[in-house]
Amino acid sequence: MKKFINDPAHVLAEALRGVAAAHPDLRVDHDNRVIYRSEPTRAGKVALVSGGGSGHEPLHGGFVGIGMLDAACAGEVFTSPTPDQMLAATKAVDSGAGVLLIVKNYTGDVLNFEMAAELAAAEGVRVASIVVNDDVAVEDSTWTAGRRGVGTTVILEKVVGAAAEDGYDLEAVRALAERVNTAGRSMGVALTSGTVPTAGKPTFDLPEDEMEVGVGIHGEPGRHRVPLASAHEIAKMLVDPIVHDYDASGPAIVMLNGLGGTPLIELYLLYGEVAPLLEAAGVSIARNLVGDYITSLDMAGASLTVVKADDELLRLWDAPVSTPGLRWGA
Amino acid sequence: MKKFINDPAHVLAEALRGVAAAHPDLRVDHDNRVIYRSEPTRAGKVALVSGGGSGHEPLHGGFVGIGMLDAACAGEVFTSPTPDQMLAATKAVDSGAGVLLIVKNYTGDVLNFEMAAELAAAEGVRVASIVVNDDVAVEDSTWTAGRRGVGTTVILEKVVGAAAEDGYDLEAVRALAERVNTAGRSMGVALTSGTVPTAGKPTFDLPEDEMEVGVGIHGEPGRHRVPLASAHEIAKMLVDPIVHDYDASGPAIVMLNGLGGTPLIELYLLYGEVAPLLEAAGVSIARNLVGDYITSLDMAGASLTVVKADDELLRLWDAPVSTPGLRWGA
Repeated sequence: MKKFINDPAHVLAEALRGVAAAHPDLRVDHDNRVIYRSEPTRAGKVALVSGGGSGHEPLHGGFVGIGMLDAACAGEVFTSPTPDQMLAATKAVDSGAGVLLIVKNYTGDVLNFEMAAELAAAEGVRVASIVVNDDVAVEDSTWTAGRRGVGTTVILEKVVGAAAEDGYDLEAVRALAERVNTAGRSMGVALTSGTVPTAGKPTFDLPEDEMEVGVGIHGEPGRHRVPLASAHEIAKMLVDPIVHDYDASGPAIVMLNGLGGTPLIELYLLYGEVAPLLEAAGVSIARNLVGDYITSLDMAGASLTVVKADDELLRLWDAPVSTPGLRWGA
Repeated sequence: MKKFINDPAHVLAEALRGVAAAHPDLRVDHDNRVIYRSEPTRAGKVALVSGGGSGHEPLHGGFVGIGMLDAACAGEVFTSPTPDQMLAATKAVDSGAGVLLIVKNYTGDVLNFEMAAELAAAEGVRVASIVVNDDVAVEDSTWTAGRRGVGTTVILEKVVGAAAEDGYDLEAVRALAERVNTAGRSMGVALTSGTVPTAGKPTFDLPEDEMEVGVGIHGEPGRHRVPLASAHEIAKMLVDPIVHDYDASGPAIVMLNGLGGTPLIELYLLYGEVAPLLEAAGVSIARNLVGDYITSLDMAGASLTVVKADDELLRLWDAPVSTPGLRWGA
């Protein structure tokens, strides 16, 4: 294992020190392992809290800031944060207008966020939740009942974050989040496994001439292993399951996401293959992201996310955002 | 070799297709392999042209846009672009106010940009050049006479790009570029080698328990190989050669850059080690970047860049920028 770490058991705590040092606009609660905006939630603004296992950076901590999240709870690598962390975050960011919890569909995250929501409600915080389940690869996985929550989370946090800044109330924010989740689909492929620091070796073995199609962001098995294919063939493996799963035609926000170990030149090459396939399937790419947004440590691989969009979603997408991971107009 | 490619010989051409598809604000000349802003250079604005071998993305093509470059010439992977490409770019972006060529100090780039400058001057374009040579690792390398040009290039393109937008004339732009280069130092370390697609195997062998200190962005040998060290020790190996090379004290723009295969959680952890060491050496980190800005394909590794700054440099740094690789205030 070759990594920039000290003690494998302290990776998260030490990475949070770096986040705090790098971003004066953020405040890190090192005891609870929560990343907040430096400024408290504006009165009347619905607050957004997300979180999950670490190792997917910039998700979620890198999406805290104006126009996106108010707080992100960081679990250990590939491990859900605890209800205590989520409760602390939820109470801290509530301005009285309520809090939306954004949860990726993994069993541990779902259970812990549910418990935190109950505890927060018992303390008088109005709480709503959205569980993102956009991964078309498998119906159930080693980590999940139902579809996993992956790339659509990034787009949801941006769009819903803008709506909260705009003054949408809690029910409107929740309904919008539901709409984005319903409109989103993702599919991923791994060329190599990532390595969890405390494990010290790759999560799974993948022969030099094979790839995992439909991989999860923790290295969960996907649909099948196939011989290593060309970028053109891989693009089809990403696009086809999405456009066969729902009517993807019309305007969309599209993200081609690197899983951590794939260089940008390869992502652009792959995007050059993906974009015409999507257009041929009737998808009109209104906005796009190409880069690392929801990763799996040092995994070489990529995922494609397509979120069907309308004028409201595009307006909210274009609104100013200022976070470490996404920034424009601010 | 596990990569998102089709034919290894067509990586650059196909990646440029993806760049064109992803970025409507950019225009790609596929024949000359030059990335331009979509809008022509505003009359009276000094134009900035850079370029170099591909494989270092987002540098340089990802820094074309408002507030940074007007054009970037893309060579094949780790291969200088040709004088023809540079000449085409220089002529295309000149609005009459002249063109600054930003060159990283590698022998091929320097010779080709010199030839392009002469040809452009012969055609009546006013041209100035800056050769960036900020790498403290080695005095000469397999690819360079004198110090190599690395991370300071990113900060120079941002600062000088803002000055050009502000109306600085060609001589003022050139003098500023000289000042930024003189103020900048970089040092890098590799945990693994990257793989050039046409080579099909890692550029160099690095045993599982060793790292290369002072590595170049093409995998050139550095100062020495040492046993794999902790992040804390590695931070010293990055900071010490810089602060021993010049008086780094005072305000600075600091970049901790990933070389392509290192995940963000490790970069933040390393930044948490680097920042206090710099502060202890008298460096006041006024601005920072943590992420992948000048890469070496899929190399696991990182580089540190420190650019001493004053009020003018910080004002230009903070000015709006809108490129695929750096974006704020726009």
